[in-house]
Amino acid sequence: MKKHVIALGRQFGSGGREIGRKLSESLGFAYYDRELLKLAAERAEVGEELFADKDEKAGNPWLFKAFYQGGPKVKQGQSAEDVLFQMQSEIIRELAEKEDCIIVGRCADHILRDMKPFRLFIYADMEARIVRCRAKGEDAARMSDEELRQRILSIDKKRARYYQFYTDQVWGDKINYDLCINTSAVNIKKLAGITASLIRER
Amino acid sequence: MKKHVIALGRQFGSGGREIGRKLSESLGFAYYDRELLKLAAERAEVGEELFADKDEKAGNPWLFKAFYQGGPKVKQGQSAEDVLFQMQSEIIRELAEKEDCIIVGRCADHILRDMKPFRLFIYADMEARIVRCRAKGEDAARMSDEELRQRILSIDKKRARYYQFYTDQVWGDKINYDLCINTSAVNIKKLAGITASLIRER
Repeated sequence: MKKHVIALGRQFGSGGREIGRKLSESLGFAYYDRELLKLAAERAEVGEELFADKDEKAGNPWLFKAFYQGGPKVKQGQSAEDVLFQMQSEIIRELAEKEDCIIVGRCADHILRDMKPFRLFIYADMEARIVRCRAKGEDAARMSDEELRQRILSIDKKRARYYQFYTDQVWGDKINYDLCINTSAVNIKKLAGITASLIRER
Repeated sequence: MKKHVIALGRQFGSGGREIGRKLSESLGFAYYDRELLKLAAERAEVGEELFADKDEKAGNPWLFKAFYQGGPKVKQGQSAEDVLFQMQSEIIRELAEKEDCIIVGRCADHILRDMKPFRLFIYADMEARIVRCRAKGEDAARMSDEELRQRILSIDKKRARYYQFYTDQVWGDKINYDLCINTSAVNIKKLAGITASLIRER
């Protein structure tokens, strides 16, 4: 039977992960986000630490790359970023064939385009994202609003460059998604419930 | 009591009007689209035909404008487009204070920004929009796909220029909306029902 797959893109700090988790609970779908890094490292037969700072980033074409040497599965000379993308793509396709699931980020909308996944993009105003980052704690407490804003923009810029590099499409451009949700002014818990109905009814 | 208002933007041929109508039925909200032209003409005390070809269009700054001469409510020398925008803006604000309603297009999201309306944008792939235009009949039967595509693009270009002219924002840029829905691959009737729940639950 054909599996139902949600490819979920999200701006940093927009609550995308929270919506993804709640959708996964409501719909009974498996949920894959950072887990994909670990699965990719296992598949490439390398330590996770090689990929740790390369998740959802494109290699920098202006610098000599950190070439990846080891492992039987990949060509010597590929950048760690390319190896990571290749491994994650294989894994994402296998998961989407195996089970109903939600894949967060990692160009899943493009990788799975033949399967017509439900493509969801979560975003929010900068102000709301700063508030959300502060509420989640982590490093935000030590940063000024301006520092936090710069950090949010910098993470999104990397995601956008990564997405563009591997898909030749513009990250977050609504035409590449079925539904784009601005979380600035809504109750995320309710929103996730209703989005789940929408996906169920499709 | 504060009124609930939906400002609905839409690409031509995307099914925005159909969703708006169904939302209006489900939620019991009043619905305003082309009616606004008539109301604006009444307010300006001119015949509707003066505005008929100017709805959702910005005046062309490179041409001498068709100056509007008559009526006690407007300054002489204003373009018909500016008069129409001014009248419609007043009417939209009054309606939004008076009753729960859906306002289609006409920069309502921007005009009502202080009231925080629910801002919805409806769009679709070009292919789906061509199919929809054909299904609706009208002039589409006499046009080739390419002619129809050009017509759709041309109408949207006018809407975009109009929106940009009066709001200084980019038409259809998702950050200006709470929810953006791609109707290409969904059942519009179901979609409208679920969007109504989403707006009710907000």
